[in-house]
Amino acid sequence: MDFSDTICAISTAPGSGAIALVRLSGPDALAVAGRVFNAKRKKFNIAAMPSHTAAFGTISNPSGIIDEVVMTVFRGPHSFTGEDVIEFGCHGSQYIQQQILQTLIANGARMAAPGEFTQRAFLNGKMDLSQAEAVADLIASTGAASHRVALNQMRGGISTELAHLRDELLKTISLVELELDFSEEDVEFADRTELNTLLNNIGAEIDRLIKSFSLGNAIKNGVPVAIIGEPNVGKSTLLNAILKEDRAIVSDIAGTTRDAIEDTINIDGITYRFIDTAGIRQTTDTIENLGIEKTFEKISRAAIVIAMFDAADSAEKITTSLGETEARMADDAALIVVLNKCDLHSANLPTVSSPKMLGQVSISAKNGNIDSLITLLTSKMHQRNTDDVIITNARHYNALLLAREALNRATIKLNNNTETDLLAIDIHDVIDNLGSILGSEITPDEVLGNIFSHFCIGK
Amino acid sequence: MDFSDTICAISTAPGSGAIALVRLSGPDALAVAGRVFNAKRKKFNIAAMPSHTAAFGTISNPSGIIDEVVMTVFRGPHSFTGEDVIEFGCHGSQYIQQQILQTLIANGARMAAPGEFTQRAFLNGKMDLSQAEAVADLIASTGAASHRVALNQMRGGISTELAHLRDELLKTISLVELELDFSEEDVEFADRTELNTLLNNIGAEIDRLIKSFSLGNAIKNGVPVAIIGEPNVGKSTLLNAILKEDRAIVSDIAGTTRDAIEDTINIDGITYRFIDTAGIRQTTDTIENLGIEKTFEKISRAAIVIAMFDAADSAEKITTSLGETEARMADDAALIVVLNKCDLHSANLPTVSSPKMLGQVSISAKNGNIDSLITLLTSKMHQRNTDDVIITNARHYNALLLAREALNRATIKLNNNTETDLLAIDIHDVIDNLGSILGSEITPDEVLGNIFSHFCIGK
Repeated sequence: MDFSDTICAISTAPGSGAIALVRLSGPDALAVAGRVFNAKRKKFNIAAMPSHTAAFGTISNPSGIIDEVVMTVFRGPHSFTGEDVIEFGCHGSQYIQQQILQTLIANGARMAAPGEFTQRAFLNGKMDLSQAEAVADLIASTGAASHRVALNQMRGGISTELAHLRDELLKTISLVELELDFSEEDVEFADRTELNTLLNNIGAEIDRLIKSFSLGNAIKNGVPVAIIGEPNVGKSTLLNAILKEDRAIVSDIAGTTRDAIEDTINIDGITYRFIDTAGIRQTTDTIENLGIEKTFEKISRAAIVIAMFDAADSAEKITTSLGETEARMADDAALIVVLNKCDLHSANLPTVSSPKMLGQVSISAKNGNIDSLITLLTSKMHQRNTDDVIITNARHYNALLLAREALNRATIKLNNNTETDLLAIDIHDVIDNLGSILGSEITPDEVLGNIFSHFCIGK
Repeated sequence: MDFSDTICAISTAPGSGAIALVRLSGPDALAVAGRVFNAKRKKFNIAAMPSHTAAFGTISNPSGIIDEVVMTVFRGPHSFTGEDVIEFGCHGSQYIQQQILQTLIANGARMAAPGEFTQRAFLNGKMDLSQAEAVADLIASTGAASHRVALNQMRGGISTELAHLRDELLKTISLVELELDFSEEDVEFADRTELNTLLNNIGAEIDRLIKSFSLGNAIKNGVPVAIIGEPNVGKSTLLNAILKEDRAIVSDIAGTTRDAIEDTINIDGITYRFIDTAGIRQTTDTIENLGIEKTFEKISRAAIVIAMFDAADSAEKITTSLGETEARMADDAALIVVLNKCDLHSANLPTVSSPKMLGQVSISAKNGNIDSLITLLTSKMHQRNTDDVIITNARHYNALLLAREALNRATIKLNNNTETDLLAIDIHDVIDNLGSILGSEITPDEVLGNIFSHFCIGK
């Protein structure tokens, strides 16, 4: 892709609105705008407009005036992309938006690729790669938690932390490499004990970031919750009751998308993704057994498993079932035991416990009496502090895993007194992997292409 | 409604986009913005920001930073509403948009009613009522013609024309009323011959505007086209062929809405609204006759009637049918005769003529061979010059009809030498009715409410 030309796109949401924004960015942004814009005030000269100022006027094509617009000028490097940027605020008719776009293209601009404005911001050093990625996450954020994590990342949360680790390693590697220059003299500029402590500290920090990914991923993509239990124990009734609960809880946030996936709900800013499961029971029916196999798979992928039982079930039966379920659950997943139909059986309820259990609640899904379950469900996420730096991006996660492996190799070599040049290679590998998250080194085009192609047009 | 407070709304299209705009307007706009906005640059003072300048910074609520935004200041009266206006350009996540809106409301702004920004622009004298109404039409415009007519109106096309007529009448009425002051002396300040000429000229101009409404309405709401003919003559096949044609013709205008009404198409910037009709034939079936009654109704409402016949039909049969159809058509409607199935019958085709006929074409709807029909269909609209002042608004149309009636009464009184005070009443009535289009006189709240409630929020 060529980044020396001038791009344009509609930057506001598709559809009709009161106002729409069409943006230009690139070396010819002012020239292109100057050809199509006529200011209302006399003696207007676009070249003389200071940065961050707006002018009212019309935008025209050869057939006549397209619209009355407000044109705002942001001069590079003090703009989002770092280039000269022009914004046209026009009336939000789709016809007008398209006409303006076509006029800009006819006057020398090119239609922007998805994410190209942000990609240019990255290439012009306005932000690092993790910050650029956070721009897309921020736009896609639908709840308080995903919003906060994306905003922190865009404002440099991850960047600061990784840059700090990287700087420490760069200082050390320069000492290690100094030894290589004097290799015949067998000097030691980098204290090996200090180096060992440093690698350990960095390892601990990388581990913390790696571990944060399960939370980060849950915040970004929703917390996977599996509701399991025997047929007719009330799984669907419970799900409906939760969905209804949700409507009340999120009513102050209009427009939160939830029609696509019926069983995604947002409680207190965190999205929970409910996974339908088939009822589990002993059966010889082949098709039903396939369904149960799938349920087992879903249990293993859930962050929270809600195991439903009938309030009339015995403690023994429940305990046996929980053992089987826990064995299939992920290590850091949590289990909630729900005794349903407490409207029918309310006396002598069994009490159970098991290692992964977050708690046990008695409910009546039919009567919508599920407050205790909601409190328990959300408590697990509320324990976590989303103000910490949290990894939400699979690319970052994989780079951290690679950095961790290189760090392990370096530690082993350090302890074995392996030759300095081999140690240096591994430390460089850690630095490069941390740097790849920030895009500090030259990032391959296909990686960049993959990152920015997931953006919306106009950003 | 109270217009002394400060309003806010999301002004860009609903949904997620790269950027969204949230607007504030009112006396406290700067104060509200100052409470929630923190500029990135130091020594920032919102009160010192000149009009039409933008600043980069963050917007926060008590929980923390909501987003990084560009804030643009437009100081009244040099703003859209005439009041102080603040625009926040934020990341286009719906969550962020809602959070910003809630924060502005928590800090003293009120959620704007639909069209309230434009209503304030009208009340503050930034535009007259016909221009304000055109803002909504402009946003709703989906094709070149409706866009051009709305833009002309917003830029004062109708205003200039009506203000001119009104000024002429105001000059005359002042002379007429001067006579009333000297009524005992029987003087004549206003020359009666000149007055008669003036009323005639104004009447002709009002007639032209009244007549333009059928075109204006067609441009705004689509040209109603009825396809009629006997069962199985190929009406549906033709409609499908036209819809397919349309796809090719409008392919350069993305996003033109047409999924809601399947049989609305846009050709060369003009929307045609195809009206389904039941086949017409002699029958004793009660239900079928009810359908045919409906078809007759639709014929009377169509601007263009496409009468389809089989290429094998005789000229005599066609002529008889055309006579019956024309009798039911509106006075200024046009008739197109289509001989279908020319792939089967191509020799000795009948030739017919009738008063309202625009022309006759031979087609094969089945083979999609309908170019000649499309050319004929669009020629009727292309004869009309959409750069003239055109009435598109039913409220304006009705006011013009009332003005015309008052003018007629005035002319009769003038010719009958009726007393001057009675003549003055009718001339005032003309002035008031023309003025009501512009909102020059005090417009009743319910009229304003009705006009602006049809706007989208944020405009």
